[in-house]
Amino acid sequence: MATGDSRAARLLPLVSRLNADYARAIDDDRLADWPGFFVERCVYKITSADNYRRGLEAGVVYADSRGMLEDRVTALREANVYERQAYRHLVGAPAILGEADGAVRAETPFLVVRIMRSGTMDIFATGRYVDLLVKDGSGLRFRERIVVCDSSRFDTLLAIPL
Amino acid sequence: MATGDSRAARLLPLVSRLNADYARAIDDDRLADWPGFFVERCVYKITSADNYRRGLEAGVVYADSRGMLEDRVTALREANVYERQAYRHLVGAPAILGEADGAVRAETPFLVVRIMRSGTMDIFATGRYVDLLVKDGSGLRFRERIVVCDSSRFDTLLAIPL
Amino acid sequence: MATGDSRAARLLPLVSRLNADYARAIDDDRLADWPGFFVERCVYKITSADNYRRGLEAGVVYADSRGMLEDRVTALREANVYERQAYRHLVGAPAILGEADGAVRAETPFLVVRIMRSGTMDIFATGRYVDLLVKDGSGLRFRERIVVCDSSRFDTLLAIPL
Repeated sequence: MATGDSRAARLLPLVSRLNADYARAIDDDRLADWPGFFVERCVYKITSADNYRRGLEAGVVYADSRGMLEDRVTALREANVYERQAYRHLVGAPAILGEADGAVRAETPFLVVRIMRSGTMDIFATGRYVDLLVKDGSGLRFRERIVVCDSSRFDTLLAIPL
Repeated sequence: MATGDSRAARLLPLVSRLNADYARAIDDDRLADWPGFFVERCVYKITSADNYRRGLEAGVVYADSRGMLEDRVTALREANVYERQAYRHLVGAPAILGEADGAVRAETPFLVVRIMRSGTMDIFATGRYVDLLVKDGSGLRFRERIVVCDSSRFDTLLAIPL
Repeated sequence: MATGDSRAARLLPLVSRLNADYARAIDDDRLADWPGFFVERCVYKITSADNYRRGLEAGVVYADSRGMLEDRVTALREANVYERQAYRHLVGAPAILGEADGAVRAETPFLVVRIMRSGTMDIFATGRYVDLLVKDGSGLRFRERIVVCDSSRFDTLLAIPL
């Protein structure tokens, strides 16, 4: 760990809180707030553990600016009017892995449950967030969030931000 | 956020711990301890996200005193002698949303897995706790806990406290 | 709680971090790192809630030294070359239950999802870790970790460390 232990201890609650707020925005269906968790020039990507391990750049979802994330939210709003499912994120404790260029590297496990209108619940996705975080104003924002899904099945993954 | 950031940071571990103790009491099948997490004059309600969003007051389960919670535990004990399932709560990081009248508002995501005697495990409920917490003696207690379930299917939800 | 509250508050982030690192090692498939989370003379056991409650000593998996854990990793590596599933641990907040002989007693709920090569995800195990933790060098290590699974079905549980 490049980061000093005491510095990691100080960062941990901030990263935890960012993750909690991020998940809550999605699960509360406040998608318009989602791009605000990223800095202007950012990377957001959803990929599989297999692809990530092999260094394949292509993700199922890729955006490299906050504007692209905003476009994505608009597209989701237009496409999804008639079929609304709900999602519930459970996010584990982050591991603070180091620091470079004023950015913090962190990894955090997650589980997302999908709740269908019929009431059926299933595991939608599991994986880990591989993040680069930067101070921005009073809090942290994502410079990079790579969503590495454990499963390679992505048929419906395009539905929501993870 | 009405609450100052440093105050929220101070409250977070206390709320986390209350949530952990609450879940452990249920999962350890120490139901008699459950009412003790609430103050004497309290509200406990289980409802669905749909009903909560529409402001419908009626919940599937409703209690407005610790005595009612105790009655509920007694009823569960009498009804459930022959069919014991186990439950496992996974509780996320709380969001401290503000403070008023000496009470703290917090929201916390949860997931409950049910384990049947046959060994089968399934997702029993997901949702968020919408809480009002007050200092009581050395720790925090619930003045109000609204259990907002993501799913509207409640057939078996009456079985245990969530 | 035998432990003073302030001492428990100080220990909590350390225990949380140990749990997060432990889970990450398994989920990242770095099994060789797993024995390093234990002290040399340790106990690691996987058992069911039923057996644990009845005080039955026998577990499905039992090891009483770091060497036995290392042997186990070797055996897993040899047996599992051709059928690799992935796992994802979600670990809840630990409860610090007391302290004795320089060891900390803690209990922590967990959920493990299994991801098959086909992409199917299911709940593999839920339960709680019943731990004895000791200071060892700069961090904490397990003197004892009893993995108490809620379900008694153990057919495939032998596959990985939990």
